[in-house]
Formats: sequence, C-alpha cells, structure tokens
Amino acid sequence: MERRKFLKGAVVGGTAAVAASGLAAPAIAQGKMEWRMVTSWPLNLPGPGTSAAWLADKITKMSEGKLTVKVFGAGQLAPAAGVFDAVSQGAAEMYHSVPTYWRGKSAGIVLFGNMPYGLTASEQHAWMLHGGGQALYDEMYGRFGLKGFLCGNTGNQWMGWFKKEIKSAEDFKGLRFRSPGLGGEMYRRMGASVVQLPGGEIYPALQSGTIDAAEFIGPWTDLALGFHQAAKFYYWPGVQEPASAEECVINKAKWDALSDELKLVVETACSATYAYSTSEYIVRNPPALKTLVEKHGVQVRQAPEDVLVAAGNAAGEIMAELREDKDDLVRKIADAYAVFRQGAMENARYTELGVMQARTLPYKFQ
Amino acid sequence: MERRKFLKGAVVGGTAAVAASGLAAPAIAQGKMEWRMVTSWPLNLPGPGTSAAWLADKITKMSEGKLTVKVFGAGQLAPAAGVFDAVSQGAAEMYHSVPTYWRGKSAGIVLFGNMPYGLTASEQHAWMLHGGGQALYDEMYGRFGLKGFLCGNTGNQWMGWFKKEIKSAEDFKGLRFRSPGLGGEMYRRMGASVVQLPGGEIYPALQSGTIDAAEFIGPWTDLALGFHQAAKFYYWPGVQEPASAEECVINKAKWDALSDELKLVVETACSATYAYSTSEYIVRNPPALKTLVEKHGVQVRQAPEDVLVAAGNAAGEIMAELREDKDDLVRKIADAYAVFRQGAMENARYTELGVMQARTLPYKFQ
Repeated sequence: MERRKFLKGAVVGGTAAVAASGLAAPAIAQGKMEWRMVTSWPLNLPGPGTSAAWLADKITKMSEGKLTVKVFGAGQLAPAAGVFDAVSQGAAEMYHSVPTYWRGKSAGIVLFGNMPYGLTASEQHAWMLHGGGQALYDEMYGRFGLKGFLCGNTGNQWMGWFKKEIKSAEDFKGLRFRSPGLGGEMYRRMGASVVQLPGGEIYPALQSGTIDAAEFIGPWTDLALGFHQAAKFYYWPGVQEPASAEECVINKAKWDALSDELKLVVETACSATYAYSTSEYIVRNPPALKTLVEKHGVQVRQAPEDVLVAAGNAAGEIMAELREDKDDLVRKIADAYAVFRQGAMENARYTELGVMQARTLPYKFQ
Repeated sequence: MERRKFLKGAVVGGTAAVAASGLAAPAIAQGKMEWRMVTSWPLNLPGPGTSAAWLADKITKMSEGKLTVKVFGAGQLAPAAGVFDAVSQGAAEMYHSVPTYWRGKSAGIVLFGNMPYGLTASEQHAWMLHGGGQALYDEMYGRFGLKGFLCGNTGNQWMGWFKKEIKSAEDFKGLRFRSPGLGGEMYRRMGASVVQLPGGEIYPALQSGTIDAAEFIGPWTDLALGFHQAAKFYYWPGVQEPASAEECVINKAKWDALSDELKLVVETACSATYAYSTSEYIVRNPPALKTLVEKHGVQVRQAPEDVLVAAGNAAGEIMAELREDKDDLVRKIADAYAVFRQGAMENARYTELGVMQARTLPYKFQ
C-alpha cells in the first residue's frame, strides 16, 4: 500500500516518538470540543486518507460541531507509526490507521484487521458487530488506554505483481517478494525472501531488479503506482489479505467522557464509513483493471492450486501459533477468530460463494 | 419471508388504503420533531422489524431528540403494502420496507432491492454509494414525492425447501413452488407453478401438500418457521435472491425541510444499519443450520448445474425485458444496473469469489 511509504524509518508497533512539540491544546468553547485525528496517511491519500477525512467530516457535521474532528496527515503531529502511542498517551484524541500495524504491541491485534486465509470484509465487520469481536477488541485496546472501531476495509487484495510466471509453489523459493505483515510471514514460510518496502519504493525496486515481485492492494491503487511498467504478470487471489480493515481509535479517557449521544455519533459514523470505504474498491477496480489489461498489456493470472494450498498451510501454521500464544488474551482472540471463521466459511459456501459461483455459469444474461 | 404474511390481502404496489383515521399530528415543540416510521413488519419482527427499530433509535439519539422517530408496525397506521402510498401522500413522514414490494409502482424500482442473478449485498450498496445507483433511485422516487436510502440486506438467500430431490431443471416443470417477486417470475419461466403465499401460511401449505416447495430467507429465519418439519431437502444457492435490500424512505417535502445536519444523521444511520443488518445474517445462520442438520435431519443439497443455468437464462430474459421497457427511466436504471453488474462480477472473480474459493482448498488451518 501507498501508505506504507510513510512508515519508512519508523518502527511499527515500537516506541516511535510522538512529535509532541507540534501539539496545540484543543479549542474548547461553549461545550464544543475539537479533537485531533492523527493518521498514518498523508492528508487525503486516495483510499485510507480520503476515508479518514470522510469520517471526520461526518462526526463533525452530525454532532453539529459539538465534536469537531480535525485530521492530521502522517508526520504532522505524530509519525505514521506513532499514532497508536500518541493517542494512548493522550497527545492526540484519536487516530486513523490499521490494526495490522500493531503486531509489535500484541500479535492479537492483527486479527482485528487482517489474517491470511481469514475473514472477508463483510465477515470481519460481522464478527465485530454481532459475533463478539468488539468485546475482545475492547479488552485488548483497554490495555493501552484505547477504544476502537473498525471504519474501513480494502476488501480482498491481489496476490501481486510478478516479473516471471509462477508455475508452482517451488517458484516462491528464493523469490524476492515485497509483502508486509502476516501475509509476508506466510510467503516467508513458503521460502520467499520477503522484503519490507514502503509503497513508494516498490516500483524502483521492481524496475532495478532488487525484487522479483510485489503485492500492494488491487487495480485501483496499483495502476496509479505504475507497477505494470516493471512486472507484467498480475496474480490473484490475494490470499495473504482476504480483507484489510482500517480503524478509528480514541483515547479511552476522552471516550469515556463523551456523552452517550456523541459516542453513538462516532460509532455510527465508523460503521457507515466501513461500508463507504469497502464499497469504493468494488467500483474503482474494474475500470482500472481494464486499463491495465487493454492499454498496458498486463497478463492476469490465477495462482496455481499448489501455491494456494502451500500458502494455506503456512497461514494455518501462523494461526496455530497464535492459538498457543503465551498471552491468555491473544489465545482467546485467536480461538474466537478461528471458530467464527469456520461458521463464516460455512455460511459463505451456501450463500455468497455459492451464488457468486453460480453467476459465472454459461447462461445468457446481458 | 415472515414479513410477507403481513401483506396478505393487500395489493402490493396498488392503491392500498391508508388508515389515515388513526393518524395523530406529529408533536412539534421547541424545534423538536417527531416522525412516524410506518413499516411493512410487525414491531420488532426479528430481521427487518428489529432493523427498523435500530435505525429509528439511532436517528433519535444521534439527533439528541431533534428528530425523534417512532416506529409503527404493519397495520397500525398503514397496512404493510400501503406504506409507500402513506408516505408519498404525507400521511406519515417515513417508511421502512423493501423496494421489491413496489413492482406495481414501477418495474425499475425492484432493481434497487433485488434481481435474480444480480448483485450481492456489498455490490448493491457499492452501486448506491459510489456507482451512480443513488441518483437513479432519487430520480425514480422523486416521481412519487419520496427520497430513499437502502438500510439493510438479508444477503444471499437459499433456494428453499423441497419435499423431493431436484435432479434436473425438468423437475421444476409443474412444481408448485412458493417464491415471490422477480425470483418467482424466474421460476415460473422454468415451468414452475409459482404460488404467492404469506410467510405464515407456508408451513401449513407444505404440510398439507398444497405446495411442493417454498423459499423464504435462510437458516436463521427458516428454522424459526419450522419448514424442516414438512420438507427435508434444503437447496442452495438462492439464485433468485443474491441479496435483498431494505429501504428507509422519506416524504420528499419533509426531507427537503430538514437541516443539512439532520439529513446527514438519517443518511449515515441508514448506511450503518445496512452494515448492521447484513452482517447479522452471517452470524445467525451457521448455528441455525447446524441445528437443522444435526437435530432435525435436514438434507442440504446444491442445486444441479442445469437448474442454475436454466434459472440464469430465465433471469436474463427478465433483465432483457427491463432494458426494453417502455419507460425511459426504467431502461436507464436497467442499463446502469447491467453494466455495473458486469464490473462487479469481474471484480468479484479476482477478489471475493477468488479468495472464498481458495479458502475451500485442502490445506491445514484450524
């Protein structure tokens, strides 16, 4: 993702310094509050940045200015990777980022954002809203003095850009592959030489031959970054990221002090933004893919089945380790996730998956 | 659906009488408004009824009572099938129902709710939020003095309950099958003798042999209605309803008079409720299906491919007719829907469908 460029040089999940010197006291007048939303993105970065701005605007307007949210880009008040600490320590009231970044805080956190071979965007939201996920998220974030809500999702991503065709899982051995997070860990277990690179450095690395392959998000964002000029084979499905959730996280003391009405405004705005964000990718990807294929000659390829099975086994190892983590709460989260995933997969088989497969049959419909 | 029971005796989309005599003037005091939300469901009917109540509560609380929404069950102020007219004529300020019911008003309306072999729940929302669907919906509802938002979805339903196994599309010929709306029209074109029955009458009709098969929603609701006691074969996927959206519709003059802040509260609450409603089915279906199979011996069956192809061809005929409708606006809506569906299907192939298929491969993950 483009946003990863802004993590360059920062220790994700570590004790990244908060640029506290730049913090002004929030304006409070006539019962009105102004909150600072620090983010891991440049202001208005298409996708996560625009989604953060949309959310802040909705909270501000629905509350009629009683809670005005001002968005700060990465590095303005806190570095991209420092927003968790900034809000935990009260240096800002709220942040917009992704749970995936906070593995260094706790391995249990990433399951609220992304798991290779895990939940889709709808399923992730269902786990949070109706399946007990929110209570576990609250318990985990409570440790850090935080209260969070999911507020966006890229949906399922692509497996990425490859200079050479992938014929079998053997081809991953030694492959210099840019893939971050647990997805990268999955490919590492398949033998890849996984490289962590910020989004802005992917294209030059592909071009110069420093790496052989890279995954980012999907056609909408990938076209903009020009990867097709350096690698022609575009593989799907991105089993490393069946979904990737964004989060809006609030300092717990600030949250607790909100009125019930304002709490509801924030929570409802987050849920609406989740729908708004997720569905944007559905609309923006198809025309971008058309451009990639028709104008730039990109070769779209499905990953061979043995690659997908090997990846699934690697993801299974990661999940098994999470379920045996030394931290009780991580085990509890991982167990709950695994059980929910089983139910969601069964439901999907008979409904979403079943009907989407049926739609691909050879009938006449235009 | 259970809700259909409440349509008994009413002319859907016709000139159902509004029980105007029961209407009290809304309380307006100190800049506060009280709006009546008439619905097509009994108060708090699990699914659509609880979703309507949830939405009304969110609008009321987020607006701090400036816009208090009071929910009325079907028949209290307006009959289930009369809510469209009631709000259009100003006898109530808003309603909660499904676009599928208003085919008699215009065939173009149903595409905002459901189309056999059409959009999934996420795709339907994406069309509305980012794909131009809302503008078409506004244009169509503007004809009736209405302004609407989608605010819920059952997700993909099941093909339904059958007394005998379905071996091929031939078995649909003469099958007495309860299936409403465009889905029923699709099965009629396959030779079924399609029956319109309210939800509450399905079980006795199956039990007595008046009908051979029936479709309603999915395990969560179907278990409660006891269909498994009269038919043992439970078929998927429900290609007649890849999704089924609910809507919150407001009298246009009342809508136009709202402040921008209150408009935003209503719109945002609808979007959040869409996510809330859709995801509940994902959570409630798996345990219900387990009960149906393990406790009641229900036989789960996938529809044969030739059935699905025949159904797809029938759905394609329906779509082709909508695209040749005599009403310019219906043609415009149908064309836009068809184009959007092509893009959504392509996107799904590489993402949601692709990754859900990969999840079913034989790898080790627990």
